[in-house]
Amino acid sequence: MKKIAFFILLLTSLPAFSQTRDEASIKSIFTESLKNGQSYELLRYLTKNIGSRLSGSPGAAAAVTWGQDVMVDWELDSVWLQPVMVPHWVRGQKEIASVVRSKKTDSLALNVCALGGSAGTGPGGVKAKLVEVRTFEELAQLGKKNVQGKIVFFNRPMDPTLMNPFLAYQGAVGQRADGASEAAKYGAIGVIVRSMSSNPEDYPHTGMMRYKPGVVMIPAIAVSTHHADLLSKLTKEDKDLQIYFETHCETLEDVPSFNVVGEIKGGEYADEIIAFGGHLDSWDLAEGAHDDGAGCVQAMEVLRLFKAIGYRPNRTLRAVLFMNEENGLRGGKMYAELAAKNKEKHIAAIESDQGGFTPRGFSMTGPESAKARIRSWKPLLEPYGLTDFSQAGGGADIEPLGKQEGPDLSGQMVLIDYIPDAQRYFDYHHTQEDTFDKVSRRELELGAASMAALVYLIDQHGLK
Amino acid sequence: MKKIAFFILLLTSLPAFSQTRDEASIKSIFTESLKNGQSYELLRYLTKNIGSRLSGSPGAAAAVTWGQDVMVDWELDSVWLQPVMVPHWVRGQKEIASVVRSKKTDSLALNVCALGGSAGTGPGGVKAKLVEVRTFEELAQLGKKNVQGKIVFFNRPMDPTLMNPFLAYQGAVGQRADGASEAAKYGAIGVIVRSMSSNPEDYPHTGMMRYKPGVVMIPAIAVSTHHADLLSKLTKEDKDLQIYFETHCETLEDVPSFNVVGEIKGGEYADEIIAFGGHLDSWDLAEGAHDDGAGCVQAMEVLRLFKAIGYRPNRTLRAVLFMNEENGLRGGKMYAELAAKNKEKHIAAIESDQGGFTPRGFSMTGPESAKARIRSWKPLLEPYGLTDFSQAGGGADIEPLGKQEGPDLSGQMVLIDYIPDAQRYFDYHHTQEDTFDKVSRRELELGAASMAALVYLIDQHGLK
Repeated sequence: MKKIAFFILLLTSLPAFSQTRDEASIKSIFTESLKNGQSYELLRYLTKNIGSRLSGSPGAAAAVTWGQDVMVDWELDSVWLQPVMVPHWVRGQKEIASVVRSKKTDSLALNVCALGGSAGTGPGGVKAKLVEVRTFEELAQLGKKNVQGKIVFFNRPMDPTLMNPFLAYQGAVGQRADGASEAAKYGAIGVIVRSMSSNPEDYPHTGMMRYKPGVVMIPAIAVSTHHADLLSKLTKEDKDLQIYFETHCETLEDVPSFNVVGEIKGGEYADEIIAFGGHLDSWDLAEGAHDDGAGCVQAMEVLRLFKAIGYRPNRTLRAVLFMNEENGLRGGKMYAELAAKNKEKHIAAIESDQGGFTPRGFSMTGPESAKARIRSWKPLLEPYGLTDFSQAGGGADIEPLGKQEGPDLSGQMVLIDYIPDAQRYFDYHHTQEDTFDKVSRRELELGAASMAALVYLIDQHGLK
Repeated sequence: MKKIAFFILLLTSLPAFSQTRDEASIKSIFTESLKNGQSYELLRYLTKNIGSRLSGSPGAAAAVTWGQDVMVDWELDSVWLQPVMVPHWVRGQKEIASVVRSKKTDSLALNVCALGGSAGTGPGGVKAKLVEVRTFEELAQLGKKNVQGKIVFFNRPMDPTLMNPFLAYQGAVGQRADGASEAAKYGAIGVIVRSMSSNPEDYPHTGMMRYKPGVVMIPAIAVSTHHADLLSKLTKEDKDLQIYFETHCETLEDVPSFNVVGEIKGGEYADEIIAFGGHLDSWDLAEGAHDDGAGCVQAMEVLRLFKAIGYRPNRTLRAVLFMNEENGLRGGKMYAELAAKNKEKHIAAIESDQGGFTPRGFSMTGPESAKARIRSWKPLLEPYGLTDFSQAGGGADIEPLGKQEGPDLSGQMVLIDYIPDAQRYFDYHHTQEDTFDKVSRRELELGAASMAALVYLIDQHGLK
């Protein structure tokens, strides 16, 4: 009888005990983060002392050294670099663009920037009449006879009525990525794309574009949303309006660079790896504060938080600063390639690449059982503003890792995105406005603590 | 049999129909808000063209005229002013403060500002040794013999580890409000209070203080958090350190001002009023963007949204721009007084005075049944980020209204606060940093839409 009573006690009290311990651990993570968090000062250095970090640039190289140095100083169990060859696109001399109206002698300057990966026009520039479209279907309907020799103006806005600005971005970004290839099919000599932005603004947003195999590589620029609206209005008023633009960008030879990895070795299940990271590269126009200095410093801070509260993990924890997310994804691919080569077993990977904003939740892709396990922790995370666990996730840098295969590997891992509140993200994304002063100390630190709390729970309870 | 089937159909399908209609209405509110919302441009005018609006100032008077003009232009059913006498405190010439160290000849300037309501030192200033305390208990223990003739330095920080910065504020703000009265009891000749802030910063935060009846009205200033830390360090190093400060503020005669009210008359239940508002006054140091230009433009925008989507309410809807929340609450009290005098029946009052940040939920105080009704709408509001309905609410301006009494009135109404994400609020609160550029267009507009959605639901379904 005594034995049974004890057994029942054990059954009922153990989860409660574990819940209480988890609660206390998570509380201590957030307390350390809000009292002594280092994310903000790390980000200040990365953005203000190093600055922009496009792959192949001196800034990117300096960021690699910085990331390594900081984590070495922290005396993690291991810190290393993963060599990776990255594309080397350079903007060159600042772009110019202007509207040449048929009945006016003045020319109106436009706020533009070349899209990443674009070929330059060179000093001669391009000058042609404009064809405005919103979709590739519209473009196809216009066909060669209306497009040949012209500049195509892709002017589909991000849908402001969607609550999730990332969905609005997905709905518009095709123009930026593939607009030049599509326009070239019909003989266009250049493209100008409405900036991917939530708002009316004066500055352009850069971002990646790519040429499909076999197309003529025509130059591509982004125009500020204010000027996109103006251009649309002027084109309607003046059918003979022309655009002139000049870009000096070019793609050079690939150059060597690195992912930076910092690790705390696990105890009982050291072979099981939980990785978390952001990308170290940024666009050349930006300090890369929200995109994605925030994700990098948060990933580093997760490890610092565990050291600060004296937590020794069961599993192996890794902060990964990926190189080249913006224009090639070479770092993410290399990380996955090396993981496969070294037969590493990742049980979860968490990416933070949606800005250093206030916590909202986590999105997940992976086995149902693992996702259900994570959702069962919601009561522990909700007090910290983490309420959204409903979306599918898996950011660009960790996606290649999701394909890990092999005995006891395949289909086991969960890809997770940290979801902050995204309403301000596309005010800054890929622009000169993505600067340190746009980041709130508390919001940034809370993101690091949120990630650490989830890592702690996965480390404690596993995902099987 | 047919009849029964029809009856069952009616029973089961009506709520579903209503739910679908509510969903669609709320969707159309958010769509209008995110596409054509006017809150942001209204706030731009209020902050950039009018600017600071302390009660009794020309800015406050201009804001009254502006609020009235905008709502008259919108052709609401009625727009009117409610006269109210308000306190008239003026800062005068900029404050100065410095540290005078016993073994150094230089003097260190401190970033300070007089607290609202404080008496000034006049041109002679005050100069005395410093006594640092964290609590009134510490002060009492020190007693007259240690405090007499000195300046008391209240240096209790807002607790950074609390997730809700408003709780941290509540835990620290007593020093600011009552510090001078407490210190005067023991013969202090001035007080200097650590700014109410979440962060280490260079600028001071002003805010209201009050003198208890019978105490000597000693001058009170706030010091920036950076300088509070410095002062604390220097005082420990140099026991004979002195502080000099000079303030030129004074309280003049009360002056006339106004609440501004805009109304759309209800249909079937026109006698039931739903009021929503923010406060039009701000501190003199700030543009009053988040505190509380945001709340004012959101309240106005609620009415505009309903007109824009063609919604005719069942109940009477009122946007109220309260005057003098910061240093007297005269507007809130006058609104309640007039409501009582006119035997008005308010069923709900919603206040937005926690900044123009991204939506989180609503807090509520009132009858359990009404709160339960509101919570039952959570599924309709969650898609817009409104997930927190658990806290008690009732902001400063609407609290006096909560006491409405009379047949069919008493205990009926619900006081509601709109809760945005508050992590950045105390970076700006009552400072020179509370400016328009700290407001995100989408976050601000979403707040207006959130309030409109709740007003819509209360209007449709009542609270009984």
